[in-house]
Amino acid sequence: MGRLLGGIEAGGTKFVCVTSSEPGVIASRKVIPTTTPEETLGQAITFFREQGPVEALGVASFGPLVLDRASPDYGRVAATPKPGWTGADLSGALARALGCPVALDTDVNGAGLAEARLGAGRGLDVVVYITVGTGLGGGLIVDGKPVQGLTHPEMGHLRVRRHPDDLDFKGVCPFHGDCLEGLISGPAAQARLGYPLNDAPLDHPVWSMIAYYLGEFCASLCLIASPQQIILGGGVMSNLAIFPAIRAACASALNGYVQSDAIGSETFITPPGLGDRAGALGALLLAEDMLSR
Amino acid sequence: MGRLLGGIEAGGTKFVCVTSSEPGVIASRKVIPTTTPEETLGQAITFFREQGPVEALGVASFGPLVLDRASPDYGRVAATPKPGWTGADLSGALARALGCPVALDTDVNGAGLAEARLGAGRGLDVVVYITVGTGLGGGLIVDGKPVQGLTHPEMGHLRVRRHPDDLDFKGVCPFHGDCLEGLISGPAAQARLGYPLNDAPLDHPVWSMIAYYLGEFCASLCLIASPQQIILGGGVMSNLAIFPAIRAACASALNGYVQSDAIGSETFITPPGLGDRAGALGALLLAEDMLSR
Repeated sequence: MGRLLGGIEAGGTKFVCVTSSEPGVIASRKVIPTTTPEETLGQAITFFREQGPVEALGVASFGPLVLDRASPDYGRVAATPKPGWTGADLSGALARALGCPVALDTDVNGAGLAEARLGAGRGLDVVVYITVGTGLGGGLIVDGKPVQGLTHPEMGHLRVRRHPDDLDFKGVCPFHGDCLEGLISGPAAQARLGYPLNDAPLDHPVWSMIAYYLGEFCASLCLIASPQQIILGGGVMSNLAIFPAIRAACASALNGYVQSDAIGSETFITPPGLGDRAGALGALLLAEDMLSR
Repeated sequence: MGRLLGGIEAGGTKFVCVTSSEPGVIASRKVIPTTTPEETLGQAITFFREQGPVEALGVASFGPLVLDRASPDYGRVAATPKPGWTGADLSGALARALGCPVALDTDVNGAGLAEARLGAGRGLDVVVYITVGTGLGGGLIVDGKPVQGLTHPEMGHLRVRRHPDDLDFKGVCPFHGDCLEGLISGPAAQARLGYPLNDAPLDHPVWSMIAYYLGEFCASLCLIASPQQIILGGGVMSNLAIFPAIRAACASALNGYVQSDAIGSETFITPPGLGDRAGALGALLLAEDMLSR
């Protein structure tokens, strides 16, 4: 038995709180609805006191987050449309109440960390994890650590070249219109269809367009960061039938320039390996890394 | 005095060979014209024997290179239009002749490593170094190490969205036509102008187009890797007058989404700090890192 660690996958609808004393193994788990910061954080604190004490806590959270350690607002939620959460002091409140160090990162970096170290990308040096759902986000994990420079990556807002048969749709991103998120997130697909993407048959042409843009995206990632694997998760990706078309679109965009047998293969662009446990396992890894630093 | 290290900046027209016993300080230097592998590598070996023995040699080379350690061709030059160099065993020949370990990386990763650790990006965790000249290449340096996953990045071949006033030019990249390299490298600019870019006045509209695409490129880099600094070097970038337009185009593409005062500032997108010494200094860092591993 190792030290007891805590993890929170902090989402907009629920907080998944877990403890663990063995890497990759969850010892206890509680799901708390996301209401107000006081109520939700209060219930999380009660859980960790009951199960604990924990030696460190990792939080993989919805955002935006202030992650610049030089900022007086470090550890807080930045301006968010979610009522009551703007300015909520996630890491400060938890650290004070539990008397332990708190490591905070974005939900996508947390899930990416878990997929890169314990899941589909296990054993690789450079992995990109993408989630396509209500939004489109991504984490770049190098040597088992999310890359974080100026802020954290915001890959979903990349502008890609439009498909020649898709020039009319304006996109739904309030900042960029037809960036990737604006073109193929769940809400973008719904705007294209007039009804939820979940209700579209699996052979509806909207899926071809999603696969095309994801293939272009993967090609861009390949050119900029040269990952050994790109893992695509999130609600939209539960349609596994589109993976072959994504791989083909990526290979077509690169047109033979990146010389590797991996391009176009089933091992290069893959679904996640950890299912819905990635976020909580990633939060535990954040806690583990904080103690080992 | 530390250990004596050797470095080669191996270019298509010349090999710059250096030795050093102190980080960042070049003790001896010899420039050898790039003719045949036998002749050029032979002269380099003679230089290092005269100045040495060196304990390790770093080579930052023109490419393409085989850098996959699992490949039987590791350390060789891959298919290149440069006569006689396809298959040349750079690292093997040098290691055998000098009896020391040889670290090999691309010229752009070498220069990027030096700029990130000793030059314009000194002290930062995540830096991108771009060179715009005959080609367009880039290196992503994280925690003082070039990121290398599947192969090495090939950022110059990113497809960006075309400027609305620039839809007619087809681009010159034999693989992708109008990828970034195909749109704004030196040869691309010459194809646009009908004469060399060097002969274009500094206020020629071609420079606005180059600045626009580089701004889009920097925005893409920012979204994918979130670097603290992007360093733009190479022959085309010797026109420093275009930096303000690049910064403005990057900020405009991001449209306020990435919340950082750095965006648009003079410290985010910068010229290099080491001038033409970056390649040789980077080669020495490759040697140093090999010994400290």
